[in-house]
Amino acid sequence: MRQSQLFTRTRKEAPKDEVAKNAQLLIRAGYVHKEMAGVYAYLPLGLRVLEKIKQIVREEMNKVGGQEIIMTALQRKELWEKTDRWDDRNVDVWFKSELKSGGEVGFGWSHEEPITDMMTNFLSSHRDLPAYVYQFQTKMRNELRAKSGIMRGREFVMKDMYSYTKNADEHKKIYDATIDAYLRVFERVGLGDRTFLTFASGGAFTEFSHEFQTLSDVGEDVVYLHREKKIAINQEVLRDDVLTKLGIARDELEEVKSIETGNIFDFGGMKSEQLGLFYTNEEGEKTPVHLGSYGIGITRLMGAIVEIFSDEKGIIWPKEVAPYNVHLVSITSGNADVEKEADRVYEMLRESGIEVFYDDRDLRAGEKFADADLIGIPLRLVVSEKTIAAGGFELTIHQLAERQGKGTLVAESDIIETLHDA
Amino acid sequence: MRQSQLFTRTRKEAPKDEVAKNAQLLIRAGYVHKEMAGVYAYLPLGLRVLEKIKQIVREEMNKVGGQEIIMTALQRKELWEKTDRWDDRNVDVWFKSELKSGGEVGFGWSHEEPITDMMTNFLSSHRDLPAYVYQFQTKMRNELRAKSGIMRGREFVMKDMYSYTKNADEHKKIYDATIDAYLRVFERVGLGDRTFLTFASGGAFTEFSHEFQTLSDVGEDVVYLHREKKIAINQEVLRDDVLTKLGIARDELEEVKSIETGNIFDFGGMKSEQLGLFYTNEEGEKTPVHLGSYGIGITRLMGAIVEIFSDEKGIIWPKEVAPYNVHLVSITSGNADVEKEADRVYEMLRESGIEVFYDDRDLRAGEKFADADLIGIPLRLVVSEKTIAAGGFELTIHQLAERQGKGTLVAESDIIETLHDA
Repeated sequence: MRQSQLFTRTRKEAPKDEVAKNAQLLIRAGYVHKEMAGVYAYLPLGLRVLEKIKQIVREEMNKVGGQEIIMTALQRKELWEKTDRWDDRNVDVWFKSELKSGGEVGFGWSHEEPITDMMTNFLSSHRDLPAYVYQFQTKMRNELRAKSGIMRGREFVMKDMYSYTKNADEHKKIYDATIDAYLRVFERVGLGDRTFLTFASGGAFTEFSHEFQTLSDVGEDVVYLHREKKIAINQEVLRDDVLTKLGIARDELEEVKSIETGNIFDFGGMKSEQLGLFYTNEEGEKTPVHLGSYGIGITRLMGAIVEIFSDEKGIIWPKEVAPYNVHLVSITSGNADVEKEADRVYEMLRESGIEVFYDDRDLRAGEKFADADLIGIPLRLVVSEKTIAAGGFELTIHQLAERQGKGTLVAESDIIETLHDA
Repeated sequence: MRQSQLFTRTRKEAPKDEVAKNAQLLIRAGYVHKEMAGVYAYLPLGLRVLEKIKQIVREEMNKVGGQEIIMTALQRKELWEKTDRWDDRNVDVWFKSELKSGGEVGFGWSHEEPITDMMTNFLSSHRDLPAYVYQFQTKMRNELRAKSGIMRGREFVMKDMYSYTKNADEHKKIYDATIDAYLRVFERVGLGDRTFLTFASGGAFTEFSHEFQTLSDVGEDVVYLHREKKIAINQEVLRDDVLTKLGIARDELEEVKSIETGNIFDFGGMKSEQLGLFYTNEEGEKTPVHLGSYGIGITRLMGAIVEIFSDEKGIIWPKEVAPYNVHLVSITSGNADVEKEADRVYEMLRESGIEVFYDDRDLRAGEKFADADLIGIPLRLVVSEKTIAAGGFELTIHQLAERQGKGTLVAESDIIETLHDA
């Protein structure tokens, strides 16, 4: 993509009413547009990041056998009444509206109910189990306050997976496989070393549920971290009996702020009973299907990445989620030969299958570099009179706490390999 | 994908309340699930078809310079009041709700207003124009009746593109390029020879707007078709002066039923004036930006394809939008060697980059073929004792009005090439 063609542009200031750093940076760099508090549109660069995160999650969900579907935003009142989650006294984030044809309709803030109800069409025998389905869905939640940028939205994208199994044993296998899949997701998006499996309070069927907490000073949560064991404990379950069970002494724990980036939950057979999802087991008995649910907030994950991978100059994306593989910057100083050479490099890189964001704008070097710092593609390649004279291109690799001023000269013959390996 | 693993299954009957053929077939074959009237979830096979259609549209929109974004479902009242489209007396398909923090919020049934408002952040000079943006958005419309299956939903996916240009001349160029792009889309999804550019009544700025109408007996529209000239005329503009202008005699026209699968519209500078989107022209004058909007109903297109490409046995997808490239069917008759051979063929095809749906289920041939007919992947490859003895596989290519009973034997050495060329 030529930057001169991109309709968005960077801006010096974020809107005054935007208080979250993630949204401030994303708006200034042209990734998102704020429609209203907690409601953001994704512009070309932002949509690319979002799709990269989704693709990583998709690959890992497919690996554990997940089948992708897409449910609906509109929700039937009757269905949610069966589980007693329609009433605003029980669920306080519903958006509801009136149907022209009569009756009320809700907008999906979660999807356990409709997915489980749908499954009654497909699951009836032990031979149909296990089944796991997932979706990337736009959820709508009528939050009273929305001040965390894209980390807690009124409208946001979530990956939610649901597992349907015969019993607790079969459930446990999928549950554990999904924990591993989640850890791979956090590793791949660059949050691996600061994201921890966290013990939280369980429901009616299990002692614990599990969260994934990503350490960050802007986190709304507080957890107690055992760095060595790579686990954390939620405040609700910070009790002596739990510590004993986990083999942890209280003074080994570190109190830290964190962002909940994922959660997994065991519903047992409860929802299936309420919604009429039963299967016939090997003995011919009618048995409720065991339900597990597994969420990752996709837009929240993007926001958390920005909170963590940014400095005073802008964002520095982890490589796998950057909107483009490389930011090519031409410094022409009015020299048409440099422009021609940069154009040639742009085409050459694209033909090699590299995703290139090409700053071909007629601007001073300082402005171009400031924009590149704000936008934050970690690999930057400069073409200028100087680099042409030296017979190559200047490559800088930006990392958190390691902004590069001066780059390395890479010869044209090495550039593709160098970019692939970087 | 192994069919034995897919959680959906075919069913003999559609739900009794489902009256549209497209939804009946899609539900029976396991492509969609009906959540409520006009509201459908997309199951694994259905999501694949949807994504294939979206990808075709995406490629054609990118070719004319479109930049993909994604706006929001939640809509600000103040914005739509500026164009007098908030009031239910003017727009009768709004879903609206109350914000917990106070005030009303709407759910997007269209997006000209928020996109144009957003553009005030980016477009201010003649140097910023033209700009074209598009999105694939889930639209919500509070329709009184919804009886056309996925062809007219309360919740549906639309590709909407918006062009921002300096003036009518620049607009005309993009408008014409987009007409060509739309014709390529219809060609690629298999509807080329029955989709016609149609003259409809214009707005305040143009004599005509344009629709794309796809001939079908279940269409809700009636148009007057000139087959030779490949254009149609909408009832509203079937007047002598229009016929004269288009050089058409009334008796050359054929009255036909059709489905509106696309539309394009010229708003002139009106909306930009209402929403405050101005640019400074070469002479330094503040000028409203010229807006065009271009829609294709993605889910409607999928429904139209099913209405047209189906017979009493099921669906027969056009090749480019089929959920998989080939349906591999094993007829093992209890012979484990056949199963092993079919497994091998499955892996071989996948390794060659072919998308394979593999019916590895332990069922009678008749049941498997009936399901394959219903699901409608046009290329079908059978592995059986007979084909193994003959040293190859049996290939059938299903087309509308040309269901094949008997196939052609293709040798293993030719199979990849044959499938690619089919």
